[in-house]
Amino acid sequence: MEHIFTDDYFMKKALQEAEIAFDKGEIPVGAVIVVDNRVIARTHNLTELLHDVTAHAEMQAITSAANFLGGKYLKGCTLYVTLEPCQMCAGALYWSQISKIVFGASDENRGFQKMGAQLHPKTQVISGVLEKECADLMKAFFKNKR
Amino acid sequence: MEHIFTDDYFMKKALQEAEIAFDKGEIPVGAVIVVDNRVIARTHNLTELLHDVTAHAEMQAITSAANFLGGKYLKGCTLYVTLEPCQMCAGALYWSQISKIVFGASDENRGFQKMGAQLHPKTQVISGVLEKECADLMKAFFKNKR
Repeated sequence: MEHIFTDDYFMKKALQEAEIAFDKGEIPVGAVIVVDNRVIARTHNLTELLHDVTAHAEMQAITSAANFLGGKYLKGCTLYVTLEPCQMCAGALYWSQISKIVFGASDENRGFQKMGAQLHPKTQVISGVLEKECADLMKAFFKNKR
Repeated sequence: MEHIFTDDYFMKKALQEAEIAFDKGEIPVGAVIVVDNRVIARTHNLTELLHDVTAHAEMQAITSAANFLGGKYLKGCTLYVTLEPCQMCAGALYWSQISKIVFGASDENRGFQKMGAQLHPKTQVISGVLEKECADLMKAFFKNKR
């Protein structure tokens, strides 16, 4: 039997969350956190609804996963997120010592790589998973807004 | 009459919050957000109690102030915080477009300046206000821990 728990598999779950954000009029970013092939947090951007710049999908996912695990460190966990994290989220991921980050689309303007923020040295990063699907959803959102 | 609403005045309020964190066994960082000389948020670090790396004093202050104001932008606001913000908090402050940040002690290891994170270009920064008092509280905390 083929192994179904691929990066694509979990990124699709993050994309489903991004679509929920899209339907709410939020910038469509979704995230899931996975440990041992089990999704322990699923979140989407809620900055508009909550009037809160800190309500990025990743920030909520970190809080939610830590609640689930009963501890603040996310060692052994993987974050799947449809857009490259910003420096705020990279900073939170740094503190969490998360093991792996997989993101879909790059953010050339406000992504942590462009802005210069640092991840924890132990964190592995994979980019470009379902990149087109993730980027297309963002493009559709901003096209609607104009 | 001398103007009482100085940076020292509001940093003392942030220090009072840091002392509450100290008493709870949290790394003693406190913050207040001020608009028109009125304190609209007062918070302290709660990362241990909440098992949540995102529960820095500044993050809670941003959320709290935005709730108070009914909008996510903190233009016209000043954050007073006893320790230099980390890259996560700097990233959140960037998104908030806060007008002014006043911090007490520098964080040579994990402060946003060392880590390379960026604030919003419109944000004014003042450092070293009640620096010794802010730093002494941190030193006392870590001395107790060892």
